[in-house]
Formats: sequence, structure tokens, C-alpha cells
Amino acid sequence: MRPVITFGEIMMRLSTPGFARFSQATSFNVTYGGGEANVAVSLAYFGIPAAHVTRFPDNDLGQAATALLRQHRVGTEHIVYGGDRLGLYFLETGAIARPSKVVYDRANSAFAQLEPGMLNWEEILADAQWFHWTGITPAISAGAAQSCLEAIWVANKLGITVSADINYRKNLWQYGKKAHEIMPELVAGCDIIVSSVGDAADILQIKPIKEDADAFTSVCRQIMQQYPKIKKIVNTKRGSVSASHNTLAGMLWNGQELLQTITHDITHIIDRIGGGDAFMAGFIYGLLTYQNDQKALDFAVAASALKHTVEGDANLVTVAEVEPVMEGDSSGRLKR
Amino acid sequence: MRPVITFGEIMMRLSTPGFARFSQATSFNVTYGGGEANVAVSLAYFGIPAAHVTRFPDNDLGQAATALLRQHRVGTEHIVYGGDRLGLYFLETGAIARPSKVVYDRANSAFAQLEPGMLNWEEILADAQWFHWTGITPAISAGAAQSCLEAIWVANKLGITVSADINYRKNLWQYGKKAHEIMPELVAGCDIIVSSVGDAADILQIKPIKEDADAFTSVCRQIMQQYPKIKKIVNTKRGSVSASHNTLAGMLWNGQELLQTITHDITHIIDRIGGGDAFMAGFIYGLLTYQNDQKALDFAVAASALKHTVEGDANLVTVAEVEPVMEGDSSGRLKR
Amino acid sequence: MRPVITFGEIMMRLSTPGFARFSQATSFNVTYGGGEANVAVSLAYFGIPAAHVTRFPDNDLGQAATALLRQHRVGTEHIVYGGDRLGLYFLETGAIARPSKVVYDRANSAFAQLEPGMLNWEEILADAQWFHWTGITPAISAGAAQSCLEAIWVANKLGITVSADINYRKNLWQYGKKAHEIMPELVAGCDIIVSSVGDAADILQIKPIKEDADAFTSVCRQIMQQYPKIKKIVNTKRGSVSASHNTLAGMLWNGQELLQTITHDITHIIDRIGGGDAFMAGFIYGLLTYQNDQKALDFAVAASALKHTVEGDANLVTVAEVEPVMEGDSSGRLKR
Amino acid sequence: MRPVITFGEIMMRLSTPGFARFSQATSFNVTYGGGEANVAVSLAYFGIPAAHVTRFPDNDLGQAATALLRQHRVGTEHIVYGGDRLGLYFLETGAIARPSKVVYDRANSAFAQLEPGMLNWEEILADAQWFHWTGITPAISAGAAQSCLEAIWVANKLGITVSADINYRKNLWQYGKKAHEIMPELVAGCDIIVSSVGDAADILQIKPIKEDADAFTSVCRQIMQQYPKIKKIVNTKRGSVSASHNTLAGMLWNGQELLQTITHDITHIIDRIGGGDAFMAGFIYGLLTYQNDQKALDFAVAASALKHTVEGDANLVTVAEVEPVMEGDSSGRLKR
Amino acid sequence: MRPVITFGEIMMRLSTPGFARFSQATSFNVTYGGGEANVAVSLAYFGIPAAHVTRFPDNDLGQAATALLRQHRVGTEHIVYGGDRLGLYFLETGAIARPSKVVYDRANSAFAQLEPGMLNWEEILADAQWFHWTGITPAISAGAAQSCLEAIWVANKLGITVSADINYRKNLWQYGKKAHEIMPELVAGCDIIVSSVGDAADILQIKPIKEDADAFTSVCRQIMQQYPKIKKIVNTKRGSVSASHNTLAGMLWNGQELLQTITHDITHIIDRIGGGDAFMAGFIYGLLTYQNDQKALDFAVAASALKHTVEGDANLVTVAEVEPVMEGDSSGRLKR
Amino acid sequence: MRPVITFGEIMMRLSTPGFARFSQATSFNVTYGGGEANVAVSLAYFGIPAAHVTRFPDNDLGQAATALLRQHRVGTEHIVYGGDRLGLYFLETGAIARPSKVVYDRANSAFAQLEPGMLNWEEILADAQWFHWTGITPAISAGAAQSCLEAIWVANKLGITVSADINYRKNLWQYGKKAHEIMPELVAGCDIIVSSVGDAADILQIKPIKEDADAFTSVCRQIMQQYPKIKKIVNTKRGSVSASHNTLAGMLWNGQELLQTITHDITHIIDRIGGGDAFMAGFIYGLLTYQNDQKALDFAVAASALKHTVEGDANLVTVAEVEPVMEGDSSGRLKR
Repeated sequence: MRPVITFGEIMMRLSTPGFARFSQATSFNVTYGGGEANVAVSLAYFGIPAAHVTRFPDNDLGQAATALLRQHRVGTEHIVYGGDRLGLYFLETGAIARPSKVVYDRANSAFAQLEPGMLNWEEILADAQWFHWTGITPAISAGAAQSCLEAIWVANKLGITVSADINYRKNLWQYGKKAHEIMPELVAGCDIIVSSVGDAADILQIKPIKEDADAFTSVCRQIMQQYPKIKKIVNTKRGSVSASHNTLAGMLWNGQELLQTITHDITHIIDRIGGGDAFMAGFIYGLLTYQNDQKALDFAVAASALKHTVEGDANLVTVAEVEPVMEGDSSGRLKR
Repeated sequence: MRPVITFGEIMMRLSTPGFARFSQATSFNVTYGGGEANVAVSLAYFGIPAAHVTRFPDNDLGQAATALLRQHRVGTEHIVYGGDRLGLYFLETGAIARPSKVVYDRANSAFAQLEPGMLNWEEILADAQWFHWTGITPAISAGAAQSCLEAIWVANKLGITVSADINYRKNLWQYGKKAHEIMPELVAGCDIIVSSVGDAADILQIKPIKEDADAFTSVCRQIMQQYPKIKKIVNTKRGSVSASHNTLAGMLWNGQELLQTITHDITHIIDRIGGGDAFMAGFIYGLLTYQNDQKALDFAVAASALKHTVEGDANLVTVAEVEPVMEGDSSGRLKR
Repeated sequence: MRPVITFGEIMMRLSTPGFARFSQATSFNVTYGGGEANVAVSLAYFGIPAAHVTRFPDNDLGQAATALLRQHRVGTEHIVYGGDRLGLYFLETGAIARPSKVVYDRANSAFAQLEPGMLNWEEILADAQWFHWTGITPAISAGAAQSCLEAIWVANKLGITVSADINYRKNLWQYGKKAHEIMPELVAGCDIIVSSVGDAADILQIKPIKEDADAFTSVCRQIMQQYPKIKKIVNTKRGSVSASHNTLAGMLWNGQELLQTITHDITHIIDRIGGGDAFMAGFIYGLLTYQNDQKALDFAVAASALKHTVEGDANLVTVAEVEPVMEGDSSGRLKR
Repeated sequence: MRPVITFGEIMMRLSTPGFARFSQATSFNVTYGGGEANVAVSLAYFGIPAAHVTRFPDNDLGQAATALLRQHRVGTEHIVYGGDRLGLYFLETGAIARPSKVVYDRANSAFAQLEPGMLNWEEILADAQWFHWTGITPAISAGAAQSCLEAIWVANKLGITVSADINYRKNLWQYGKKAHEIMPELVAGCDIIVSSVGDAADILQIKPIKEDADAFTSVCRQIMQQYPKIKKIVNTKRGSVSASHNTLAGMLWNGQELLQTITHDITHIIDRIGGGDAFMAGFIYGLLTYQNDQKALDFAVAASALKHTVEGDANLVTVAEVEPVMEGDSSGRLKR
Repeated sequence: MRPVITFGEIMMRLSTPGFARFSQATSFNVTYGGGEANVAVSLAYFGIPAAHVTRFPDNDLGQAATALLRQHRVGTEHIVYGGDRLGLYFLETGAIARPSKVVYDRANSAFAQLEPGMLNWEEILADAQWFHWTGITPAISAGAAQSCLEAIWVANKLGITVSADINYRKNLWQYGKKAHEIMPELVAGCDIIVSSVGDAADILQIKPIKEDADAFTSVCRQIMQQYPKIKKIVNTKRGSVSASHNTLAGMLWNGQELLQTITHDITHIIDRIGGGDAFMAGFIYGLLTYQNDQKALDFAVAASALKHTVEGDANLVTVAEVEPVMEGDSSGRLKR
Repeated sequence: MRPVITFGEIMMRLSTPGFARFSQATSFNVTYGGGEANVAVSLAYFGIPAAHVTRFPDNDLGQAATALLRQHRVGTEHIVYGGDRLGLYFLETGAIARPSKVVYDRANSAFAQLEPGMLNWEEILADAQWFHWTGITPAISAGAAQSCLEAIWVANKLGITVSADINYRKNLWQYGKKAHEIMPELVAGCDIIVSSVGDAADILQIKPIKEDADAFTSVCRQIMQQYPKIKKIVNTKRGSVSASHNTLAGMLWNGQELLQTITHDITHIIDRIGGGDAFMAGFIYGLLTYQNDQKALDFAVAASALKHTVEGDANLVTVAEVEPVMEGDSSGRLKR
């Protein structure tokens, strides 16, 4: 099977042990993750060949991050090395009414310092079947945005499916451009996007039409009109009872109808970081496997629900583990 | 008080820390457990003298396993040493919709290599009041099955109460015999058994009579007819809302009536391994203490519920801790 | 802002890791806490200057306890050193139907050996705005009780607000006096107290009048009659579904009306020790900030609810974290 | 083989992890030890039946300490329960030029509260072959001293060998008696003692005669004259290059000649607590096994040298591990 | 560069934390290693492409072991899956005079169950430049020996360099054959071997000729006569001052002269497992890089010396780290 | 006593546990340190009041770093908050021939973004007795250099003693200036400096005169001629046997004579980071206490030697611990 290529920044994640607050920590657990790499890792666990494209500093930390990807069977042959530092983020895991807390320290990373010529997209995408990016990348720096745009162009030229979680992060976009100045050109090259109603407004300046019964459908119709390459728009609906207890459902507009999933009840959460990335990976797997939008969506939401049971950014679960949940068995019964 | 003697394999348990997946673990927590030894440990915590009979390899690991039993006040004087290795199992603790996962590595253990002459049952049982075994032992090897049969014979001869959790494990029984070829002779020597409707079918080839209102009662009646020594048949009913949230109730057929308990709601599970063994230990304690089937059953289920709060295989709780739960107080209120 | 002064014993807290039982622990997590110091730490996190008065042994452990206070920005300049030992307590954290368990080892502590002349209250309270004590202190030793009384006298003389959580601990009071022989004189100097109906009976020998509709109000009216300096009596109502799941509400009698809060549902508890102290700190903060009894009470209960998410005795949360919960948002939504 | 009985206080040992200072520790490793119990544990590892006599508080900590002894195969059937608390000590492990540091917190322990009638020495020693005590016990309290004296009387009456490490600890002896007022009567009942020249002076008021060539021999001669029951006096000579590097040799006066061992070079020390107890256990083992003073002494020093490689108070090594070291092979070569 | 192919069993390594004894461990650190895979990992760290050939059980543990290789950049594409279990070994790290201790549990592993047809050596070795095996593999089972022989035949046919550490392990060879019945045919296909004088006697039945001045040279001459394909015989000379302090030197007979290295003083050892494998990897790197026997040997010994500073089986050091040590700078000076 | 004021950047230190390599770490130990703050902490442990001046980002990490200083009794009242991030460094602790390794990630820190007006030196130094800085600060950014210069001017104006470790770090100095362009003006305001012969060349462009017998003295004479305010120049001489074994001596030129210390042998090193800062703190303490250059120097080197036994950047030892080492007792004998 030809590989899925993902592209984006990977940060070192430094999290306090258990539920310790930053003010209590004398050690941090360390792993590496990023919205797009999390998709690659999850796909690799689903048996889909995946390779990640990024830029790391040429030091022990860049090597360690690369090694984690390799460990999880993600191809690292397209990674380039150079630049000043590895971006990182600090995480304090919340519980009950106390939210998890993230302190980002990602400015001036090797990835943010990407410049157009550094990645040879023709070569990288030569035998790929899918290219995935997110709205975080163009928000990081002009160079990252430009690289992403090049990748989309090449992918379009080669007839490779392009997906994106367009994901508006208002604390990024510090390099002098606004999301809606940059993103439309990139979104135009996509076949499939994840977008909430809010993202569509912030990024594409598309708002629901008041007369429309359903805001999401309203927005989707408009997006598809303006961006005719887009064939499917998906989204998740997360309910937050508490930091320890969420609910999750998915929805998909495929141009004809609005598909929805059951709502998963997720209580006793272990780690909710990366839930959206797990959804995306599940959806890509589902589309590649089932050729059935509803099943793909069901798989995606079940996969995302399972992510909440896994420590770290990435969804280290197999298809055999997702399938029962997708089919409605969330009983977690021990098998000996 | 004369001791309860338990007999069976003890394995090293290697579990990933917290909720880590096997693919994430750089260390394992280590303890030792086995279905029958767990009963002995729990009884010792209840103040009932108990000794465990098994076979360990004559190395540091066998010594460490022995030491754990001694630490928990279980008699180890009848343990024999020799053979090739200690059986072990790897455990990954599940959460929410992700089940716990067990990888067994128990073939060719010192216990599986047991041969009839190795244990002197006349001596071991000389001053005992109770002998307990489970359906795991005869499933391991012909030698283990034969040893177990000898023990039952001696116990019957000496008038010692015999109990068994007959427990069908379809992945065992690899030595060329089927459960129903071996088990009936062993079950025939029992006074008390734990059996589900499924176990009865798999092991004793007894199925509920369609006309009977209640499957469990139907099966129990038939068992008691065929195995007249058996006086009580107990079972637990576990509901699995998720890997983090179970419900638990118990039932008992004593030849005359079907007794039942309230259903315990067990959410925020710490460790559910050994829940059935905790039930058995509670039931033995209850019968020895209360001379009242309902109270014994209530105690057993309350004990099993508490097991879900204790890390490791064995139920390290005291009678003083079980009693309030048995009496309906599950509030877990801090006492200073 | 002039500081709040708290006074009381600080113990080393030795807790088993995770949910391990005492019989399983090969290490203890160590921190330091005490009912009154916990109030000081929480106030410091709320930005209120606070200093704690206590006595520590003049050794490495006394230094370590002092350092923890300093770390959390609590003033330690009034601490005196001497005496034999640091009191300590061992904690095993419960779950589900298994309660947390505390083993105290606090007899003959440096604090219990306090003698009247050791603390110069005139100096300590010279520029303070508030003095807080609890019913634990007079229960420890005659010297501690006497010191506390002196402090209250000085505070009254200087016109400083005095608050107390009168808190009856029946296992203390070992030095030959009963609570009701000592406490009334101390309570008489208070402006604000925390008291349950039970505490009022045990400590002040005041019981609800049968004819009164509400027991708490009945008791409050009587207290205020006998102790006219007291202007507000507060209390929390804790429901215990299990050791992992509590509910919490607060109530306040201010002489005119009974104020109440919503009931917070607190499930997946991390650490409930210090919940009452967090309430007290929240109430002091609220009164100093809002000049509105209802808001102060709402803040106090929200702060206490959040305490259940924090490991250790003290409530390491900020005002910005309490406010949304106080305003009804317990969703714990991740903010990036 | 008839058991060796040891008698003395057991404390909880709370040590900082690795080489952390007290001011850095957020957890303590916990184990249990005491000068005499360490001897019992070591003997049990050498295959000599041993039982320890002590008094523990009747709580979870007393149970945990008991369990540790049982785990290490030491008999606990003579332990009595009651009293206020478990003594404890805090340990910070030194390195290089920084000494290890101990903070004791043992006053008012269950053991210190021992009173004469509590232990039935006739029964305890009925089938024993050896009784061992140390100078720490009579230093703790009058009751402990009295109990020890009774034990020695009974042992003498029953013809049981009595050994003691007379061990002067100047920070103990707080109950109004001096060592030399109490100890001579106890020492008089011994067959074998460990004593340095300094101990002899402090405890027995015996000093080397100036004319004598060797101070130790001089002291030994005088001791044996005054205490004719004593047949062997042993001692170790520890050289301290640094906290990480010690040297160790042993010497023995048996009334006729001064025996000495080679000097062991012990560098890269893991844990030196309990080195003297390991020596004593080795010497008891040696005498019981070799009936040759020189071999017993060589074994004792080799055992003590190995103790420095074992974490915790007790010397968890086997005879098969001591023998090569005793025979001069300190190469520590890996055996597969 | 064409890859080096290594072939052999990989075991899970379960080691006690720090210097804890087996009887003290409540957790094990887990990693994966094997004599030949350690060579592959080290080569990968030296920048030499390497792939390892082995057989793992088709379960989570086999996956985890594969992932570790991938993490360290070792090719895993030739690994086959199947069979019963993963071999494992338990390690207790020694110190001073206490040797490290290994408990093997490797019988009936997936690797031991290898059968000739399972590995397609023509394909595996098609583009390789080097094949490396050790004397452990033929000692495990007839199937493993046969597979190894096939590999050597194919390598010889393809003109690939073959190296072996012939390594006699007397506790293996349990399948009915003796080393000297099997090994000569395999050794005959080698270009380079590691062999001590003892190995040569045990495996090849070649002993030093008494008249010869140097035993190693004497043996090497005879080996080269009988096995004319062998061009270089290397060995290390390890001195064991203690388990914490070793010395290490290397020697090489290349048919003409005996080359030797300086003796490295290695004190404060962190982990000496895999020292020989590190030597072998260093020697392969050296030969491929320097085309100078002395430099290759110097590099090999320096690499092996550095291994003693790295936890785990494999030598995770780079060429830039080995070179200064090879050139005589063992100062370990911090570079900022 | 009036406080010593130190000024400089504090970084988060993230170190791998034990001796793990970066490629093995799944967690980092976290503490905070910096060359000048380490001096302040050490002085605080010596009982000298000390306050540190720096700039932290206004987030949880800046708060945690502040808390660590407070914990160690260092004044934090002059710290200012703002800017983008906390500088950090990653540490891998070496052993034997493997050096410790540091990866810096300190660019664009809050401290580097210091601008002249941000610190009110008149106020900060108003009641100080000593101001200490290092050559790291002017190397970080123009703003930091300018701030440092202002501080020195104010200190000179107020007659406060100024000391500096002039410390050339060639990997800093990235902002367009060279050390010798900036440093002389700062050095001119110092009373006491630490400088090696190499530092003097790199920073002050002063080299030993060939005819002079001793290079250090030669350089010192020239420095004092050009910088007449300087009264004492000190330095340490570190020998590096291995990463685990160093030697250390100190020397001092006071304008008249060259003082020297004994050479300390430091083997079994725990943590050598901060050894120079410990020396400086010891020297400041010594000068303030002994008014004797030789004693001050002896104290400084003894303090630095002890630092090698303490984990973390700062020297957490007391005067009572340094004094015996200073007086030649490095035996590390346990005191009970």
C-alpha cells in the first residue's frame, strides 16, 4: 500500500506526573507529538504505511523525537535537520473541574524556521496516496505556510488525496498574517477537511446562514460551493461534563447528507490530548478501508474515544481494538 | 483454628505502570499471584490460617514468590522446589472502553511439570479443615490434574471440606485432554463449587433445561443430582459498563433456594484481576464464620467489590473493612 | 495588604503512592501540611499575604517543612524552633468503597511542647489583618491551647478579625481536658467560625432545639446568643457516594439569613485531604474580596471542590481557576 | 536446627532516594530495620532458623514491619503488639566527603514502652539455641533494659549461648541511668561480645593498660577477668577513606590469641547501614558452622563487606555469596 | 552503504532497579537485547546500516522488542513472527564484591523454535556486506543451528564477510548436541572470529601448545591452519578488580602479528552487560572504516570501555564519543 | 547582615534520570539553576542573606523557578516578570570515560530580553553588602550586558563589594559583540574576580608573559595593573581522571602572594554541575567570615568538593558540613 504522508511540527511534550500541578513537579514525563505526526502514528498502528515530514534541530533531542516515530513504525526518511531548537510544550493534566493546562514554548523552532527549498515535495510525495496537514502549520511561520502550500500543489498535481484539520489556534498566527489571508489558498487544494462552525468563520470567513436549520450543514454547503475540490467535511462534537468526563460524537457532510454517530460517554479520562488527531487518523483509515462514509465516521469517533485511554499524544490502538467500540461494545471486558 | 489449604500455580505478574500500553512500558511492576493463592492471601488477611501448596523453580524468582506469600502470612511449608521456570503473565491495565490485556507465558512451568509423587497430600492435609482448588490446575498438565485428584481423594478420606472454582479457561487444556474428560471426577469430590451456567456446560456438559424458569437454578439442580456431594453452588454476576466501571452481584443455590445479593456499583476501578478469587475467599470466610448462607454470600460479594480497589492479584483487605460494605455502606468515608 | 496569620501544627505527611495499601508500600510520598497552614498556603495562591506560626524541631525535617511553606510563598518569619520531633501522619488513599486511612503519629511534637512564653503574639500580630486557628490546636496540649488563647486575646485587643474552624477531633484531647472545658473561652474571641451541628454539640454543648425547622440555623442562633462576637457561622455539607465520588455544598448563617450554595458533584477524586481547609481559605479570600456573603460562600465551596483535584494537603489553585467553577462552569475544558 | 532468638527495637527507615538531601526529597524509600533484627534476617538468609522478639504498635505500620520480617523468613510468633507508636529514623545517604546523616525519631515507641511482664521469656527461649541482644536495647528505657536482663537470665538458666554487640550510643540513655550502671549486669550473662576499646571504656569502665602492647587485647583480657562467662570478644576495624570508600577488617580475642582478618577494600559503597549487624550475623553463622574461630571471623568480615552492596539495613546475601569473598575472591565476576 | 546483517535471539531483559536484589524488587526495568542484536544497534549508532534477523512471538511483546530495534535505527524487515514465547532474562546488578546475577528463562522461545525454511537467507543477504553471528545461536536448538549454517553458506556463496563471536556458554547446548559437534562447520565459514583460549578448547578442541610462548597466539595459529578462511582472531582481556571496577584490553592475531591495545581502567561501572558485543561492533566499524587492524582494535576496545557507562545491553554511543577514548582521552570532561 | 545580591539568568534544568542517555529517557528530572543563582542558594545555606535578581516569563514555569529560590531561602523580591520564555538546558550525566552532555535551549529567554529600564538597581542594591555577577550575563544579550553594567556602576557608587566569575563561554556571545569589546568595562568595576589564564586571554586579552615563572601569577599581575580596583583573583584547578573522578584545588593571588590549597580527590561523583559556583559562594562566605585569604580559599575549595556529592546545580550544604572537609577530614564518617 502506498503511504500516507503527514506534515507538521513535532514538539517535545513535558508533562507533570499523574495529576501534579506545575508548582509540584520535580520531574516531567517526556514524549513527542504534534497534530499531524499523531495521525501518522495512529495510522501506523492501524497498519497503514505512513511517513512524517518535519524539521528537527540536529541534536540529541531531534534524534530522540525521530526515534520515537521510528519506534511507532512511522517513516522518518523525509525528515530534515537543522535550525535552532525543538519546540516544546508543558502539560499539566487536569481532573474534575480543573482543566488541563498547556504552556507552549515553540517559537523559533527548527520547524518554524523552515524555508521553501528545504523540502523536496516532488520526491517526498512521489509514491504517496494521501497527504495530510493541519491549520497549525501555516499559523507557525511564513516559511511553514509556504512549504505547506507547495506540498498541496504537488499533491494536487500528482492526484494524491489531500486532507486537513483546519483548526484555528488564535495564539499562533504571530508572524504578521491572519488566518483568512493565508488559509483559503491551502484549503482550496483539499479533498477532505475537518472544520467546526467556528473554524469556518475564523479561517474561511464563512458563517451559517440564519435561515438554515443546522449551522454545520449551512456552513458546509457554503464551503463546498467556494471550494469545489472539497468532497467531505467532518467534525466532532465534544461535550465536557468535567475534565475527567467527556462525551464525543462525530458528524460528516458529504455534499448530500449529514451523517452522525452515536455519542460516546468517556468517563475516567486518562489523557485527552490528541483526541482530534485520533479522529482524523480513524477517518482516513475508515475511508481507505470501508468505502462507506458512515462506517468511516463511526470508526473515527470510536478511535478518538479510545485515545482518551492512552497516555501521550498519539493513539496507540489497533483496528482490532477500535472495531468492537465502533460496533457499540464499550464494555472493556477483559479477554484472557 | 485448623488451616485452609489452597493448591495451584503462582505466576509472576508483570504489569505496565499506570495505564501504559505494552508498547510504552520501560518498566513493569512485579508481584506474584494465582487464582488459588489469591484465596489463601485473602483468607490470611481475614485472620483464617491458610497455607498454599505449589511448585516453584529453585531459583531467586521462586524464592521471591515464596517470600511474597510469607509476607502476607500464608504458610509456605508445603511448597516444593524444582523444575524449569516460573510461569508468568504480562498485564496491561485497561480503562474506559479499552479492556485490560493479558499475555500469558506459563508453559513448562515448574508447576506444570508437577508429577504425582512430588506432593505428600496425607501430610499436607493432615490437620487441615478445608481444601480449595480451581479448574485452572487440571487444565495445565496431566501431572497437575493428577496431583489435584489425589489431593481431593485424601481430603475426602479425611473429611475435609473441598471447594472449587471450576472456571473454564479455553486457552489452557493444551495437553491432549478436554475439560469434560478430566473435571467430572474432580468435581465429584467437592462440597462447594463456583460455577457459571457456561462453565457447567463446558466442563460438566450440563445445560439449563429450557422449561426451567432460571438457567442457573436449572443447572444447579442437575449438578447436584449428578454430584451428590456438592451442597452449595455459587456464582457472581458481573456487569461491565466499561473497563473502569463494573457492577457485581452474587447468587447461591444451596439445594433449597436461590439466594441473591444486592448489586454493587464499582466505578473508578483500580485493579479488577482477582475479583473472583476475592469472592471465593470471602465465601469461605463467611461460611466458616456466620453459618448463614445469605451472610456468607453477602460478605463474599462485598469482599470482591473491595478487591477492585486494591492493586495486585490478591485482596489485601480485612474483615473490618468488608463488613460495612456488606452491610450496605459503600460511602468510603475517611476515618481519622 | 496586611497579612493573614495562621497558627497550628504542621505534620509531615507520608502517603503511599497511588492507591497502594500500607502493606504494599516500599516508598512514601512526602509533603507537609496542617489544617491552618493549608489555609495560609491557599491564601498565598490567592494572592493574599499570609504567614504561618508554628513550632518545628530544630533539625533537617523542621527545615524541610519550613522550606515547603516558603516555596508556596507563606511567611515563615514567626516560626520558632526547638522541641523533640516533628509530628507526622501516614496516609493510604482510598477508592470506591475503601476509605482513605490515616495513621497519626503526632504525640510529643515540637508543637505539642509549645509553652506560653515561646511565641510573642504582640509582635507576630502587630501588622496583621486576620488571625485564623482551628479546634485541633487546643486539642493537642495545654501549652498549645494556652498559646492559642493568648493569640486570640492579642488579636481581639488589636481589633484583628479572628476566624476558627472549631472542628472536633475526638481522638485528640488526650491531655486531661475535654473540649467543652477549653474551647468556649477561645470561641468567644472569634468573629467567624466553621461549625457543624455535631461540632457545636461536642465543643459548645449546644444542640438544635427540636421545634426549630433547621438544625443548623437553630444551633447558629444559640451560638450567636452565647458568643456575641461571632458574626458568621459557616459549614460544608459533604455527601459521600464513595471514596472516589463526593458531593459538596456550603451554608452560612450570618445572623439574619441562611445562605446556601449549589451542590458540586466531585467524581474521580484525586485527594480529598484538606477540603475543609480549602473551604476556609476560600471563605477568607471571599470576604476580603467581595464584601458579599453569598459570593464569599460560593467562592469557598468552589475552591474546596477544586481541592479534590490537587495532590497533597493544600489547595494549590489560583483565583482565576476558582472563579469559573464558582460561576457554575465545572467543565474543565482545556485552554491552549 | 533450633532457632537463634534476637531481641530489640525495629524502626521504620525512611531514606531519601539515591543521594538526595533531606531538603530535596519529595519521597522516602521505606523499609524496617534494627540492629538485632538485622542479625536475624541475615541468619535467615544463611539458612539458620531465626526469630525476632520485639514490640510493635497494633496498627498498619506494626503489621508492615512484621510482614517484612516474615518475608525474609524470620519468625515473628513472639512479637507482641501494643503501645503508642513505631520508632522511626530518617536517612540521607552520603557520598565522597559528605557523610550519611541520620535523624532519629524513636522516643516513646511501643518498644520503649515495654514492661517486664509483657514477654514470656521462658516460652520464647524454650527451644532456642542462641540469644542475641545489643547495647541499644538497655539504652532505650528502663523497661527494655529490664526485659533484656530477664531474657539473659532465662537464657543462662537454659544453657543457651548469649551474644551481644555492646555498642555504646551516647545519644540514647535518656531515661536517667548511665550505661555503666546498667550494662555490666547484662554483659555478665554473655558468652560472646562485640566491643571496641571505646565501648569497653564507656560501658564497662575498662581502659587499656598503658604497658600493654595492644589496646584491644589489653581491654579483652580485663573484660574476661571481670566477666568470666565471656569466651570471645570480637570487633571490626573500619577505615573511612570517604563516605563512598571504606576498608574493613575484623579481630577476635578468644582468651588465648588475637586473630585477625585481611583488610577488605570496599569502594563504590551502596549502603553501609547495618555493616556491624552483618558482621555479627556472619560471626554467629561461622561459629555454628565451622567450629573454627579464624574461619568464623573471616566469614563475618566477608559478610559485612558484602552488606555494603545491599540497599537497606539487612544483609540479604547467601552463604554461597559470602564464601568466595571470605576465600579472597572479591572480583565480583558475572556468572551466567 | 550495504547493510551489516546480524542474526540471533533477542530476549526481554528484566532488571531490578539500581542495585536492588531480586528479593527486594517490586518492579523491573525492561529492555530487549541479545548478543547479535546489540552489535546491530551499536553499528547503527556508528552510522553503519544494520538489520537484525530473528524470530519473535506474534504478540505485544514481540512487537515491543521490534519497536526497540526500530527506535535504534536497526532494520527489522527480515524478522519473522510465530512460535510460543519471547525468551527473557532477569538481571540483578552487582557492586563491589557482589557479582551481577542473571536468571535465564529462554527455553522454548520463538527463536529456539526456528526451523530451516522459515528464513529466506538468499533474500535477506542479497544486498548485505557483512553477516555476523555468535556461538549462542547454535547452542539454542538444532533449528537455530541449522538456520545459522544456512546463512553462513549463503553468505559464503555471495562473498559476504562473515564474523562470529564463538562464545562458549556451557549452560546452553541442551538439545543433545555438544558444541564441538556443531560449531566447527559453522566456524569454517568465518572470516573473523572472537575467541578466547578457553572458547577454542571448548568449541574447537584446540588447546595451546605447551612450547609456545603465548597461549593465545598458539591457539590462533592452529585455528587458522584448520580453518583457512579465518583471517583475524580477536579477543578481549578483562580484569575484574570488583563488580564496580574492571580493566579491559584487546588483542588481535591477524596471521602475522599479535596486536594489542592499552589497558582501559573502568571504575564506577554502570552496566557491563554487552561489553563483548560492543567490542565486536567496534571492531566491525573499525575494519570497515580504518582499513588498519590496530586502529580497528583500538576503536573496538574503546567502544567496549564506553559500554560500561550505558544502561542496557546495547552500546548507545557515537563514533564522535569513541574516538577521543580510542586516542587515549578518558577524562570525561564536560563540553558545554 | 546586609544581603548579597546576585544577578543572572536562571534556566530550567531537565536531566535524564541516573545515567540514562538522551536516547533512553522517558522522563526528565527538573530543577532550576544558573551560575549566579547557584551562588545565592549556597550562600543562603551558609546563613548569609542573599537575594537573586533575574527576569522570568510571567507563567507557571517562571513561578516554579521563583518558588525553588524561595524554598532555598533566597530573596526573590527583585525578580521581574515578562518576556517570552524560560531558558532551559538538557543534561545527560556522564560516567567514567563518557562526559556529561549539555544541550542548551536558552535563546530569546525572558532574561535575554532584559532591557535597561526594567531593573531599578538603586533600589535593589540600596541595602546590599555585595554584588555578584558572571561572564555569562554580558554574553547573553546587549540588554543583559547593559543591565549588568548599570548594576556595577550603582554598586561602585554605593561602595558595595563587586565580585565576578568572568567565565568565557564561546558558544554564547551571539548578539554581535565579542567578549573583549564588552567585558573590560564591567571587569573594571570588580573587587574580586575568578579567572583562569584562558579566560584572561579570551576576555581581557591578557596573556602570561613568557619570562614569568607561573602563568597564573603573571596574568594576575597584569590584570591588577590594568584593573586597579581588583584586589583578589582566584581560580580553581580541576583535574579530570574521568567523568566519575576529578581532583580539585584552588589558588588565589591577592596582589602580594599566591595562596594555594590542598588537592581534593573527588571520586564517585554524583553531580559536578555548579562546582565553580559552589567555589564562588564558598569564597564569598569565607571572606565575609574569616577575614583571612587562606581560610577563605580553603573553605571555597572544600565547598566546591562537596558540591560534587549533591544532585542539582546548587550546593545544598551547610557551614558545619564544609568545615571538617576544609580542615582535611574527607572521611565522610556517619554521625548518629
